[in-house]
Amino acid sequence: MALLVQKFGGSSVADAEKILSVARRVAASADGNQLVVVVSAMGRTTDGLLTLARQIAASPDPREMDMLLSTGEQVTIGLLAMALQSLGLKARSFTGPQVGLRTDRSHTQARITQIDADRLRRALDDGEIAVVAGFQGLSDLDEITTLGRGGSDLTAVALAAALKADVCEIYTDVDGVYTTDPNVVPSARKIDRISYEGMLELAASGARVLQLRSVEYARRNNVRLNVRSSFTDEEGTWVVEEDEPGMEQALISGVALDVEEAKVTLEEVPDRPGIAASIFKAVAADGINVDMIVQNVSHEGKTDVSFTVPREDLPRLERLLTGVVKDVGAFRFSTDGDIAKISLVGAGMKSHPGVAADMFDALASEGVNIEMISTSSIRISCVVRAADAERAVQAIHTRFGLDGGPGGDGR
Amino acid sequence: MALLVQKFGGSSVADAEKILSVARRVAASADGNQLVVVVSAMGRTTDGLLTLARQIAASPDPREMDMLLSTGEQVTIGLLAMALQSLGLKARSFTGPQVGLRTDRSHTQARITQIDADRLRRALDDGEIAVVAGFQGLSDLDEITTLGRGGSDLTAVALAAALKADVCEIYTDVDGVYTTDPNVVPSARKIDRISYEGMLELAASGARVLQLRSVEYARRNNVRLNVRSSFTDEEGTWVVEEDEPGMEQALISGVALDVEEAKVTLEEVPDRPGIAASIFKAVAADGINVDMIVQNVSHEGKTDVSFTVPREDLPRLERLLTGVVKDVGAFRFSTDGDIAKISLVGAGMKSHPGVAADMFDALASEGVNIEMISTSSIRISCVVRAADAERAVQAIHTRFGLDGGPGGDGR
Repeated sequence: MALLVQKFGGSSVADAEKILSVARRVAASADGNQLVVVVSAMGRTTDGLLTLARQIAASPDPREMDMLLSTGEQVTIGLLAMALQSLGLKARSFTGPQVGLRTDRSHTQARITQIDADRLRRALDDGEIAVVAGFQGLSDLDEITTLGRGGSDLTAVALAAALKADVCEIYTDVDGVYTTDPNVVPSARKIDRISYEGMLELAASGARVLQLRSVEYARRNNVRLNVRSSFTDEEGTWVVEEDEPGMEQALISGVALDVEEAKVTLEEVPDRPGIAASIFKAVAADGINVDMIVQNVSHEGKTDVSFTVPREDLPRLERLLTGVVKDVGAFRFSTDGDIAKISLVGAGMKSHPGVAADMFDALASEGVNIEMISTSSIRISCVVRAADAERAVQAIHTRFGLDGGPGGDGR
Repeated sequence: MALLVQKFGGSSVADAEKILSVARRVAASADGNQLVVVVSAMGRTTDGLLTLARQIAASPDPREMDMLLSTGEQVTIGLLAMALQSLGLKARSFTGPQVGLRTDRSHTQARITQIDADRLRRALDDGEIAVVAGFQGLSDLDEITTLGRGGSDLTAVALAAALKADVCEIYTDVDGVYTTDPNVVPSARKIDRISYEGMLELAASGARVLQLRSVEYARRNNVRLNVRSSFTDEEGTWVVEEDEPGMEQALISGVALDVEEAKVTLEEVPDRPGIAASIFKAVAADGINVDMIVQNVSHEGKTDVSFTVPREDLPRLERLLTGVVKDVGAFRFSTDGDIAKISLVGAGMKSHPGVAADMFDALASEGVNIEMISTSSIRISCVVRAADAERAVQAIHTRFGLDGGPGGDGR
């Protein structure tokens, strides 16, 4: 008997008919297995609640936002439990608080602190399918909290870790993790297996299929992930330990495209110790996540510092930067929302010199100018003009032999 | 400083604009008072959730229905707390479980067993307006429960009792309790003061303005109720102790009309001890609430037993009665959904003989035939043809001098 955690996202449970079809899929796994099913809010429910909140208040209190938004998942679990029961299965729904998912007090972006899965275990031991609301938990003040965007993935992984589940299956509207976005590059290939590290870099680089934090959590707790389609029986993509049997050393996992960032440049910043710290402390204090940071060599004691941030934070950042420019004695700042970030990810590149050069050459051959470069041991990211982005991704994808054919191994 | 509990129903909070206007009304009471605001689900939210549930399962599990339906109030409290905060007030929302409202395990129609209002008191002591989800609680198994139709009234009254509030204000879309339905009798008069007993009989007889159980709860715990309009500043109707200063002995409180019942007759039932018990035990075992019961004198050892039940329970009851007829040796049963129940209510009638006769005479003068009669010490109910109902109510209302003029005292 295996213990499976299955997670279905909002588009898989968007209406009554889709919930019934999720129930049939769950039922197909029920025979001889213990099942925990984690679900998100139905379709656009969360957006609808956000709209209501904004009609009421310009910047709603985060605690009250959590009170409001956590209802979305609660609706789904009630309905899915009913659907499973109508198929003759024993099922019971649980809110985040009811499954003992404890978090810190950071409303709307809470972090999981502890899981007391006793109640869940009792339900499973009673032969019940446990249907759990994703995205939500309870703080030490007994306040309802939510885990931020994509939080249902995190709920599923965290429960899988707490229950020592055999596998955590993430059901989505695509049939796995691809070498790049198939909407951009039609010849993109499904990856059969990828390491946590490779998946982390892909997720951090803009691949949307799995939430970054949930991959981190899976890696830390050694939860075997399987990303697969809600609509087919294909096996999807396995995200597992690098040294798990069956993993082969693939050079490149995939190419990720992120078009939701903007570039900010502080010009002629005095090149003194502590300057970078004061810039990014000010930005972080405003709760803005900085992604890439590039600082050029200095000329005559001055340097340019560029970084990327979520484009939606740009208005807030622009107000802040006027003060920063004055404080650090820079010349001025400029912002540019018309960029795209392209990342090449692969654990194999650690031991293969020349990957970066090949990537830059692929871009050059398409006449694409590179504006920023940043690298990690298994990732190379370039910022280019937004208009060049799709052409650039296609060129890199082809250059590294990722096009076409059925699924392969990825790193 | 007074402690007020205010309850706003679904139509008062049907959209963002209405929630903002409830917030302004609450704000007007906030100065120098401690406030607990109990709200229902927005407008037709509950109906929408019920429809979803029925698309999923023919008879959804009551526990899962509670999981589903309790989300409606939770949405409203989050939004109303935001609205109050946007007016510069300190406010905080609480689910039923969070205010320590404990119930038994009867899902969808739970009874309150206990209220641990510590958390609510702390919020009030901190100067916060407590915004509480009506209709919901938590069982001893930590399961979410709901209190049944009109349950938000009950939540408000129960919290008022637990907190020893000075008054429990029930805001509705009418400006108080009327001598009869103003939609049926345009000359209906608003009642300024009515005793718990009078209000109980009116509520039990079909007046919809207050939920019956909440009036019972208020009487038992001596909670002063004020039923008033969400849209005006009129004082509404006070529901208080019979001997409270300012109460005068009014003969008649009002005339209630109930068109949602059906009549059932078991014909030629053997007139033996225990027969009635076995009939109504069988009906009660199926969870059907019987209202009026009339048994005629017997002829030749046989009698007819008639009773009324909610019309929606008729299909279920008909299946049941086939067995009952056989078990008790009756001739047959008949059902009739085309009836209306008219009740005349007033504590004064105890000491005034002739009230019943006057009522029957008023009906006779309109040519309305009476099919069943049942009385309590402060109520007389008659079943008539549905088609005669409005004419009958008007005739009785006029006969007892209830027409016209500004509000008066009722019993």
